[in-house]
Amino acid sequence: MPTTSDDCIFCKIIAGELPARIVREDERTVAFMDIAPATYGHTLVVPRNHAQDLLEIPAEDLEAVVRAGRAVAGRVKERLGADGVNLINSCGSAAWQTVFHFHLHVIPRYADDPLKLPWIPAQGDPDEIAMAAAQLLG
Amino acid sequence: MPTTSDDCIFCKIIAGELPARIVREDERTVAFMDIAPATYGHTLVVPRNHAQDLLEIPAEDLEAVVRAGRAVAGRVKERLGADGVNLINSCGSAAWQTVFHFHLHVIPRYADDPLKLPWIPAQGDPDEIAMAAAQLLG
Repeated sequence: MPTTSDDCIFCKIIAGELPARIVREDERTVAFMDIAPATYGHTLVVPRNHAQDLLEIPAEDLEAVVRAGRAVAGRVKERLGADGVNLINSCGSAAWQTVFHFHLHVIPRYADDPLKLPWIPAQGDPDEIAMAAAQLLG
Repeated sequence: MPTTSDDCIFCKIIAGELPARIVREDERTVAFMDIAPATYGHTLVVPRNHAQDLLEIPAEDLEAVVRAGRAVAGRVKERLGADGVNLINSCGSAAWQTVFHFHLHVIPRYADDPLKLPWIPAQGDPDEIAMAAAQLLG
């Protein structure tokens, strides 16, 4: 059983207590679609074990998350036709962290997309998110 | 000897052929100050072996870079008084990559700093960069 934190929405997603479109899982990590995507296919990778942030996550989980993030980045390029990808971690609210369970953003980039950071998170189109999830799954 | 690429400025920094303010080194990685810092203390971590980007870098080097990035992030918080930190990797020019030797940005964040991404890179103040390097070194 992973270590969990009460009232952590990512722990609840990992436990299956909150819905999410999961696209990849391994022993240490879970990847699921961001519900407020910065671009089409925006995915989050989290460790199963709760850790608040970059400075708290154990090295083995950090490495596993980054390996998983790279795997998702590969799918993003192969399957979504992305031209590039950003990996971003935010550590601390001064760095735009809003959920205090370590997570790595995998943000597909498209030539001439208008992304600027911080993006203003807004609920994404559920159909679009579902479509991207289907493309990235498994 | 690391694998190198001709005309790669980061390979030249690693080889000591171009100057840089190096703040941390280990067997697989080198960390040095960005000369166009987005914020005070902005550092880059690179693998000694040349790899173009996230999709090309071997797993062992990727993991070593991320471990080094976390170590630098810890120093940034302890020594520079940063309130947070962003780790960012850009894979592909559509994702703002401009030097095609894999690198992880470690960007210190300060409460209410005005950072937006992409920042417009501009040559930093050499004295400020030197001061941050001295604080982060060793």
